[in-house]
Amino acid sequence: MSQSSLLVTNCSQLVTLVGPARPRIGPEMRELHIINDGAMLVKDGHIAETGTREQVEPLAEADTHVVDAGRRVVMPGFVDAHTHLVFASNRADEFEMRCAGMTYQQIAERGGGIRSTVRRTREATEDELVTIGQKHAGWFLRGGTTTVEAKSGYGLTVEDELKLLRAVRRVSETTPLRCVPTFLGAHEIPDEYKSRPDDYVDLVVNEMIPAVAAGKLAEYCDIFCEAKVFSVAQAERVLTAAKQHGLGLRVHADQFTSSGAVELAAKLGARTVDHLEQTTPESIAVMKRAGVQPVLLPGSVYAIGSQKYAPARAMIEAGLPVVIATDFNPGSSPTASMTMILSLACTQMKMTPAEAITAATVNAAWSLNRGYRIGSLEAGKSADFVIHDAGDYRELAYYFGGHRAHAVFAAGMRV
Amino acid sequence: MSQSSLLVTNCSQLVTLVGPARPRIGPEMRELHIINDGAMLVKDGHIAETGTREQVEPLAEADTHVVDAGRRVVMPGFVDAHTHLVFASNRADEFEMRCAGMTYQQIAERGGGIRSTVRRTREATEDELVTIGQKHAGWFLRGGTTTVEAKSGYGLTVEDELKLLRAVRRVSETTPLRCVPTFLGAHEIPDEYKSRPDDYVDLVVNEMIPAVAAGKLAEYCDIFCEAKVFSVAQAERVLTAAKQHGLGLRVHADQFTSSGAVELAAKLGARTVDHLEQTTPESIAVMKRAGVQPVLLPGSVYAIGSQKYAPARAMIEAGLPVVIATDFNPGSSPTASMTMILSLACTQMKMTPAEAITAATVNAAWSLNRGYRIGSLEAGKSADFVIHDAGDYRELAYYFGGHRAHAVFAAGMRV
Repeated sequence: MSQSSLLVTNCSQLVTLVGPARPRIGPEMRELHIINDGAMLVKDGHIAETGTREQVEPLAEADTHVVDAGRRVVMPGFVDAHTHLVFASNRADEFEMRCAGMTYQQIAERGGGIRSTVRRTREATEDELVTIGQKHAGWFLRGGTTTVEAKSGYGLTVEDELKLLRAVRRVSETTPLRCVPTFLGAHEIPDEYKSRPDDYVDLVVNEMIPAVAAGKLAEYCDIFCEAKVFSVAQAERVLTAAKQHGLGLRVHADQFTSSGAVELAAKLGARTVDHLEQTTPESIAVMKRAGVQPVLLPGSVYAIGSQKYAPARAMIEAGLPVVIATDFNPGSSPTASMTMILSLACTQMKMTPAEAITAATVNAAWSLNRGYRIGSLEAGKSADFVIHDAGDYRELAYYFGGHRAHAVFAAGMRV
Repeated sequence: MSQSSLLVTNCSQLVTLVGPARPRIGPEMRELHIINDGAMLVKDGHIAETGTREQVEPLAEADTHVVDAGRRVVMPGFVDAHTHLVFASNRADEFEMRCAGMTYQQIAERGGGIRSTVRRTREATEDELVTIGQKHAGWFLRGGTTTVEAKSGYGLTVEDELKLLRAVRRVSETTPLRCVPTFLGAHEIPDEYKSRPDDYVDLVVNEMIPAVAAGKLAEYCDIFCEAKVFSVAQAERVLTAAKQHGLGLRVHADQFTSSGAVELAAKLGARTVDHLEQTTPESIAVMKRAGVQPVLLPGSVYAIGSQKYAPARAMIEAGLPVVIATDFNPGSSPTASMTMILSLACTQMKMTPAEAITAATVNAAWSLNRGYRIGSLEAGKSADFVIHDAGDYRELAYYFGGHRAHAVFAAGMRV
């Protein structure tokens, strides 16, 4: 990492997102704390000062390297709190079948869906998965994302799940993208356990979780709690075991059906519940009481051609510290672009551009227990920031489809 | 333009789109005529040969410059048949208002909408508009688009409309992007004519169209035929005058209401009718009988948060030679990315990736009267082609949000 100092200046807007040391709620989500004609001083990979050019430029020492933002927007790197970063092979073939009218169910019956990615991921070596993960990491970085949560879940054997988590660790070590690993052994019931799902839950609880914890391969445990996948009772077993092994909890909940997963997550003190397209006002109240953060994934609603998005406005109005994320995965959300998610959040869920940016930076950082280190441009935090090809932050959500960051810095080093 | 020869080889798929000298209809839209492990020879800016590597490589002369596609997809540059390429200033401010719950109508009442872009475009000099147009041209090219139709329509005075069309011409002359100019003086009724719209139609008919034709500044004339904008009777006056002056016809029709614009367009022999979100089965039959091409614009449905897309499947099944386009504009469709439109076409309108690619290349070229020169990779056509960062053409519609072309060539020259 860079040990030298850096002056980032001539920012049309320095979008700082400074504020209290907790996620933002309600009207706070619209307060980006923008400094017009701003500048920022970086030392030893960390933010030293932010302010107007007039305030900050005189503080730079003679040998400070100057980065001219060219009257562009500068803001924190995006924090993507829900991704399936590493998987073997894409599923463009199944995408075509769906366009041609086949349903997910029909594709699954033919061996498609998550299980097809599982087959290919099991066949891949760890080195091959690292190479794929590095390619995906490049996509995230080019779009202005500097931290991702990264789930396993395409292995579904002890060895293959560990292989995926080791690959995630190596991607994090060999690229500038920070990865927060999540164990998602309970992503799907593998074919060989179809007739005895509880035996698979036993495997997750008795073998996978202890091995993941022993290897310190994950910070979180997640489960796909959904009709025909894992029941609430099975989820309780998995999540309780994970908690006992010191893992934080995240839960795929209420994507296709409202199942009681939110209530379970609240009871167990989960950090987040993710998806929530089918969530009820009652579940929103439960989240609020329990302090669980909702992670909304509009990319997966869009890409499967559904029109039922999670009720973001109701959640914001209820005071929930909403997070938005890509859900990058080869089936339901093949996008690594957080600006695309900003666009979806604004046009389809009626969040404002400022709310969407808060949800994709500082709120996401808190949901990953990284709120003290990343997610805003404040003295002391890591210098993870992006120069965007825009003069105004609203353009990031407004223009859609082809955005790439002008320049990306992680810990003060240009990517 | 390049006079030397070029061998493009090591293409995982060479997507040729060869076929009859007319737009593709029905099942033809799914036939991309892909050559696996393909190669292409380019001479003097034109395509000389296409085939497998084995067939084509031996035909290259010793001094031929070799372009290694690196096992990527190579296909024709996209042809974007509906754009508002040149306008002053974006409308990210109004975008924010809409996200926060304001309607288009309310924004228009406050002086927003097309009229706000008109005010700013009138204030801009021709040179300023050229600079903006060149920036936008860069966006199109980076996304793999090599030809665009480009409309005026933000001037709404004789001088300002001519200024816009001159700017379009200069963008076409000074960038590798080919621009096909369309006069859209009847885009909106300007403020100063609000109380006497027929007087504005007089101005369009008696002064603008003759001036545009005399200056050879446009190939087509378009009109926004819609309730509260221009009526079918007014459209008939404008389009008839345009036709008499030798302009081809395109019509904004059935976007918010089904008005009879399609029937008028058919009667007058228009080349295209564009938008069509509200089109009826009867209008589809009218288009079919008249040989009018539908140009579908899903970006503008998405970006205004509507969920009613044009009935693409019904049109394809009726045998219409469907075109898709970005509708790039600062209000309802701020995207220059044709791959984003492929994604929308597939996920929201249930076109297959192959149909969408046909609609965005060869069918679009025919709709612009350029079918003999561009839109497919066939011997004799201009060497407008793109190397995409994908191994399979379906990935272009599957991944969404952050796509940029790997390399773009116009008339055999790398952009």
